[in-house]
Amino acid sequence: MLLRALYPTMKSGLSFLVSALRCEIDELDQLARTSELVGTIGRLVHALQRERGISNVLLGSRGQRFAAQRDAQIADSLQLEDAVRQAFDQLESEAPRIGNGARLFSRIAWVLPGLGALPELRRRIGALALDPAASTAAFVKLIAGLLAVVFEAADGATDPEISRRLVALFNFMQGKEFAGQERACGAAAFASGRNDEARREQWLHLIDSQEHCFQLFTDFAEPALGTLWRSIQPSAQLAELERLRRIACAAPAGVALDTELSQRWFDCSSERIDAMQAVEERLADGLRTLCEEKIAQARTELQVHEALLAELDGATGTPPTAFLDEPAAADPAPSPAAGAAPYGRQLERSILEMVREQSRRLQSMGDELETVRAALNERKTVERAKGLLMAHRRITEEEAHKMLRQTAMNQNRRLIDVAESVLAMAEYLPAGGPG
Amino acid sequence: MLLRALYPTMKSGLSFLVSALRCEIDELDQLARTSELVGTIGRLVHALQRERGISNVLLGSRGQRFAAQRDAQIADSLQLEDAVRQAFDQLESEAPRIGNGARLFSRIAWVLPGLGALPELRRRIGALALDPAASTAAFVKLIAGLLAVVFEAADGATDPEISRRLVALFNFMQGKEFAGQERACGAAAFASGRNDEARREQWLHLIDSQEHCFQLFTDFAEPALGTLWRSIQPSAQLAELERLRRIACAAPAGVALDTELSQRWFDCSSERIDAMQAVEERLADGLRTLCEEKIAQARTELQVHEALLAELDGATGTPPTAFLDEPAAADPAPSPAAGAAPYGRQLERSILEMVREQSRRLQSMGDELETVRAALNERKTVERAKGLLMAHRRITEEEAHKMLRQTAMNQNRRLIDVAESVLAMAEYLPAGGPG
Repeated sequence: MLLRALYPTMKSGLSFLVSALRCEIDELDQLARTSELVGTIGRLVHALQRERGISNVLLGSRGQRFAAQRDAQIADSLQLEDAVRQAFDQLESEAPRIGNGARLFSRIAWVLPGLGALPELRRRIGALALDPAASTAAFVKLIAGLLAVVFEAADGATDPEISRRLVALFNFMQGKEFAGQERACGAAAFASGRNDEARREQWLHLIDSQEHCFQLFTDFAEPALGTLWRSIQPSAQLAELERLRRIACAAPAGVALDTELSQRWFDCSSERIDAMQAVEERLADGLRTLCEEKIAQARTELQVHEALLAELDGATGTPPTAFLDEPAAADPAPSPAAGAAPYGRQLERSILEMVREQSRRLQSMGDELETVRAALNERKTVERAKGLLMAHRRITEEEAHKMLRQTAMNQNRRLIDVAESVLAMAEYLPAGGPG
Repeated sequence: MLLRALYPTMKSGLSFLVSALRCEIDELDQLARTSELVGTIGRLVHALQRERGISNVLLGSRGQRFAAQRDAQIADSLQLEDAVRQAFDQLESEAPRIGNGARLFSRIAWVLPGLGALPELRRRIGALALDPAASTAAFVKLIAGLLAVVFEAADGATDPEISRRLVALFNFMQGKEFAGQERACGAAAFASGRNDEARREQWLHLIDSQEHCFQLFTDFAEPALGTLWRSIQPSAQLAELERLRRIACAAPAGVALDTELSQRWFDCSSERIDAMQAVEERLADGLRTLCEEKIAQARTELQVHEALLAELDGATGTPPTAFLDEPAAADPAPSPAAGAAPYGRQLERSILEMVREQSRRLQSMGDELETVRAALNERKTVERAKGLLMAHRRITEEEAHKMLRQTAMNQNRRLIDVAESVLAMAEYLPAGGPG
């Protein structure tokens, strides 16, 4: 009893409930911050996607087309790049101890040298010192780095509802990027007046990948946004897109493509991608609103708890026995005698009930979160399998992806299942180097 | 270009690498804190386990045995309770924004009313106003609350190696708790001079559960501790334990047990549990050391990065192009020409390599962490299935556990598989109430 007297400020259960709520609000604040960042990244990605497509027309036409468009686009990209850099800096200075920080900041560290290399990339493109494939590869790599930041933001989310929206947004952005790569691929083909087997195969792969991503988006987004996405793709535009796809991909090797179609291809695919950007903005807006609502809701709850805590400080103590006597967990209703209990006892019971309620809520949030994360884990598994193949067989990421996809098609299995088999069989793979 | 000039302090990739490392060190500091807390909780749990066993002998013998032992044990429990309360308060004041805070603090909020109810529980036991089953149930509930805090600490770990140790420690503590429940169960049986079918079944269940936990402990602990655990259980002691188990559990219903065996049972099972406590202390020590080592290692790395960052600030800028020109990810060795590159270029390359190395490390840590977490998810799945059964069928936790176990035995399936089936079939379960 001596020791007990030494710590008169021993905190009650309610005080820890308040602390738990404060942590939750902190996590929501962080999510709001990263959601904001994701929106900013999305706008830069959109500009870089346009710049990539325009650069490919320029390179494919040996400097004949799109020089002026390119200058305007570069100015736009630069402005949005500054916004992203500023958002990175802001995140670091305002939330240096963010939950998912180690991974998120590492991804940012990876992307910054990519942004730093943009002036040199642009110089080489302007000097026509790169072929469209090399230029595309450089933009693809940079955009992949930016999307990896978005992925970490989604992976770090601790609220299942927000996590769902982030998963939907990430997959939409990834799908849009495949659409952007398709635009660049088609732009190079039409501008140069020819298509070949390798490009054709890549093109079809990009169509497949888009569809997979948009499916995941539809699965995780609010139904209203899925509807919006379907409604903004007019059938006429889709028909024109499919017609141009067919012309380029069904043409026998060696047969010339009409170079005049490059403008039409660029406009048609750009119109579609711009429409995607509108959906993406709506997704980002919805995410922001959701974060704000959740924060407001948690703050209200915090106020209730804090008021109760103050009240409890003033209440005269009754021996705390509710924990001992409280009904079994499965017992639903308060006992009829509860009204007759003394005030302190009643307060104690209601606090216990709040604690139980909060535990239940956190538990079910955790469960739901795991379900949502499964979609992210799928990507991680495929990435790991690709990494393994790259290291062991000394091949590029694209080749590794193609191997997996080919195996999946041959064996009529899902990509994720093939990736899992590859990982399970890791030790049987031919040794390739330090990897 | 105007905008760029407005933010002259734009941070480099290396600066974010440093931020990422700082976040990692923060996470390790938090893990060291919670590991410390887990050790303190373990000591209180040990004392409460002894108090539960002693109380059962007192109640089973209608106050004839262990009155003095009980007073001594209560004094010990009180002292350790104060240490735990102090540790809770310290965690809250020193790390109010701890990563896993929402869940961890909720668990603490749940456990504090349990500690607050202890004086009343002790009063009722002293007045022989409870039967051994009710007294055991109260202690079991309180200890389960304390172990839930340990579980959240393990679940919140972001470093896979530390997570492995926490999973080992949690399972060891849980196994020890089943051993403690077995002691209390046996103490009540021998002290009252009789055993019955329900208690026999519960007893066998406790033996099963212990073995499962110690298996998981062996899977996740350092091999040295697995060896220690096997070596401290002398065969003679195990033989005596098994003999007493057999006497109590194989006796036909209605046949009297020798009440003189209660002291022998209590001593024999206590000796075993005290030996467990020694292993547990070793586990907690090892965890502390590991955290310290990891923190020291991360701090050294941080210093290297910070020195490089300072150096970079002084270096004259060369256009950053390493990201653009760097070899493909699968390419292992630096190019032979690297030595000839200008100083800035070389520095730039080495930073890119550091970023890539850190990403790889974080990625593989994430993968490993998921593997370790599978062991925790197993528990979560079983808990969820139990919760569902409790709500839908209005049964107690123990009954729910028994149902699952019985089904597993009948169908020759693992408990976790049955639990997963239950969750998958949730909507087909009979409706039972608001749950």
